[in-house]
Amino acid sequence: MKIEAIAVDIDGTITDTKRRLCIDAIKALRDAEKLGIKVTLVTGNILCYAYATSTLIGLSGGVVAENGGVIYVNDEVNVLGDIKKAKKAYNYLKSIYPVEKVQFSELRVSEIAIKRTIPVEIIKDALKDFDVEVYDTKFAIHLTDPKVDKGSSLKILTKKLGIDLEKTIAIGDSENDLEFLDVAGVKVAVANANKELKEIADYVTKKPYGSGVAEAIKKYVTLS
Amino acid sequence: MKIEAIAVDIDGTITDTKRRLCIDAIKALRDAEKLGIKVTLVTGNILCYAYATSTLIGLSGGVVAENGGVIYVNDEVNVLGDIKKAKKAYNYLKSIYPVEKVQFSELRVSEIAIKRTIPVEIIKDALKDFDVEVYDTKFAIHLTDPKVDKGSSLKILTKKLGIDLEKTIAIGDSENDLEFLDVAGVKVAVANANKELKEIADYVTKKPYGSGVAEAIKKYVTLS
Repeated sequence: MKIEAIAVDIDGTITDTKRRLCIDAIKALRDAEKLGIKVTLVTGNILCYAYATSTLIGLSGGVVAENGGVIYVNDEVNVLGDIKKAKKAYNYLKSIYPVEKVQFSELRVSEIAIKRTIPVEIIKDALKDFDVEVYDTKFAIHLTDPKVDKGSSLKILTKKLGIDLEKTIAIGDSENDLEFLDVAGVKVAVANANKELKEIADYVTKKPYGSGVAEAIKKYVTLS
Repeated sequence: MKIEAIAVDIDGTITDTKRRLCIDAIKALRDAEKLGIKVTLVTGNILCYAYATSTLIGLSGGVVAENGGVIYVNDEVNVLGDIKKAKKAYNYLKSIYPVEKVQFSELRVSEIAIKRTIPVEIIKDALKDFDVEVYDTKFAIHLTDPKVDKGSSLKILTKKLGIDLEKTIAIGDSENDLEFLDVAGVKVAVANANKELKEIADYVTKKPYGSGVAEAIKKYVTLS
């Protein structure tokens, strides 16, 4: 099967734990783009951050940001998630725990991300009756509109680009990556990925972070 | 002289003409940070983009964004430029020419950046009676509050970090970099820089873009 596209998470997948881009990943993704393979970034981060990452690497497949709440493709932004749900949940959470939003929270338009100062299980329990999905990405805890996820939004984006998801490699590391690995033909978890992601993966890389991404691209794409 | 800090422009300096980060620059800047040298990004781009670039490379010296209109240091944002001046100039410009703002213009808080569809000399002439500085960065044309520039804002930022500007290398490529090279002890223009910048530089690199940045760091900082 000829791979048409790569969908890849940012933090913990093409970056290290300090959010620094791995050189191996940059090189491998650029090589893939040279072969005409479109690379889409699929992240919990805000659009502007994801757009910067895509531009700085040199990718052409657009962006899924805010865990599916926002997509950016063909110079167009679409907000798909409803931030009102997150606001309601956050206001309740704030009334019972000293929670704090992450940096640049004012730029987040479809969900709310909070600092990981309280165990995610406590937050999940506190919000079990609210209409939000709670994700722990190891970088932040996200309160997201359950109507969107990285998978459903990647579907919309790839349709706009005419990409066949069956011929797409999806690569991630954490629980908010489950849904977008699920919709892709080839599912890859990097070595540092959490257990649930490794269980559904077609391939778990031997190397962690960006070196794992490079390893997966080498395995599934014949690089010239 | 022991170098304490590096202040470096993004587009056209650590990136190529397509705004892709140069691997050479990433490596050299990371090596400098390992030696305890603080690296500050000084750009005409918006804060969020500059912050992403700083994080993805792994830099600790904060950010001067929007040509000095915004600084970010120690987790704090300061807006120093007055966007009302740019708005007035832009509205006039729009009434006589078909100008268009660049992407994510809604995130720009102190100045306005427009696409390079009209020669900058025509824009400078049209706005000669307005209270704005007009910069052409080769990526966009910026209408900036004349009360701020990359140099005056770098001064404020380095003071907050306790950095001695005399022991700082400044590296840039275009006319909006003149002021911040001017305030630094060591002034470097990359090989692709414009004439004016090369004229005031202590050193013009042999190599262009990020390879030039790596060359300058090697020349002025003893890398282990």
